[in-house]
Amino acid sequence: MTADPSTAGRVFEVTQIGTVSWERTEVVDDDWDSVVSTITLVGPYQEASLAGLDAFSHLDVLYLFDRVNPLSVHTGARRPRGNPAWPEVGIFAQRARDRPNRIGLCTCALVGVDGMHITVRGLDALDGTPVLDIKPVMTEFGPRGEVRQPPWSHELMARYF
Amino acid sequence: MTADPSTAGRVFEVTQIGTVSWERTEVVDDDWDSVVSTITLVGPYQEASLAGLDAFSHLDVLYLFDRVNPLSVHTGARRPRGNPAWPEVGIFAQRARDRPNRIGLCTCALVGVDGMHITVRGLDALDGTPVLDIKPVMTEFGPRGEVRQPPWSHELMARYF
Repeated sequence: MTADPSTAGRVFEVTQIGTVSWERTEVVDDDWDSVVSTITLVGPYQEASLAGLDAFSHLDVLYLFDRVNPLSVHTGARRPRGNPAWPEVGIFAQRARDRPNRIGLCTCALVGVDGMHITVRGLDALDGTPVLDIKPVMTEFGPRGEVRQPPWSHELMARYF
Repeated sequence: MTADPSTAGRVFEVTQIGTVSWERTEVVDDDWDSVVSTITLVGPYQEASLAGLDAFSHLDVLYLFDRVNPLSVHTGARRPRGNPAWPEVGIFAQRARDRPNRIGLCTCALVGVDGMHITVRGLDALDGTPVLDIKPVMTEFGPRGEVRQPPWSHELMARYF
């Protein structure tokens, strides 16, 4: 089966709801759980938008990889991190940042909420990154059933968090 | 602390990468794990975009709640599902669909990949929903540390999947 090439994707606008800021600014590739960062909401969001958030221990943060040039986005298959020891896998079978729509998703720990500011640990987004959504982690939304994944993904993730 | 009201959110365009289709079309509120659906890629994505995906058991699917009127989006606090027994919580402390940017996120089971078609179980998106991204589930990306969440969220999720 092949896709119908006459079916073009619909285009939608999304608007930044907050901004990531770091206390330190060096870029890290791994060890993200050592990074504590703050998400500050932008208008029209208010303290009420975060009411009750502190009852959750973890958040799913959706953000935009705005430092990735849209012209650098991959649509096909390649080796993750260019590692010749790993197989060529499609862009939707990896979590690389130079991906269609450039949306990042990270589950991180909530440290605290103070007004319009959310402090988190382990968010793999650079200082200044625009945030698109924040969702509370509910265990019921996690994978139902045993998770299976290929060896390369365990190797890649070994020092990530 | 309060947000700087002069900081307006940046706007980005995102483009549908695939479409959800159901074998049956009734709307469900709960019991989503009984729903088997298919995501069909739209151009320019190809079979190569999915290479190696079948080595994973679960996917994170990001989609757009296109049936939600943008004028109905909530930004403040309210009771989930309007249930008077539950507290008022901010839109970023719940996973309701009428949320800023209308982006849905669901972890679902991968049933199979056939060309440009991905069959999944437990995706909580309606027939015809535009998909924005597909990411493989890696256990390392799950919550690090014990998950804590309020009682209302367990009650809401009791029959969801």
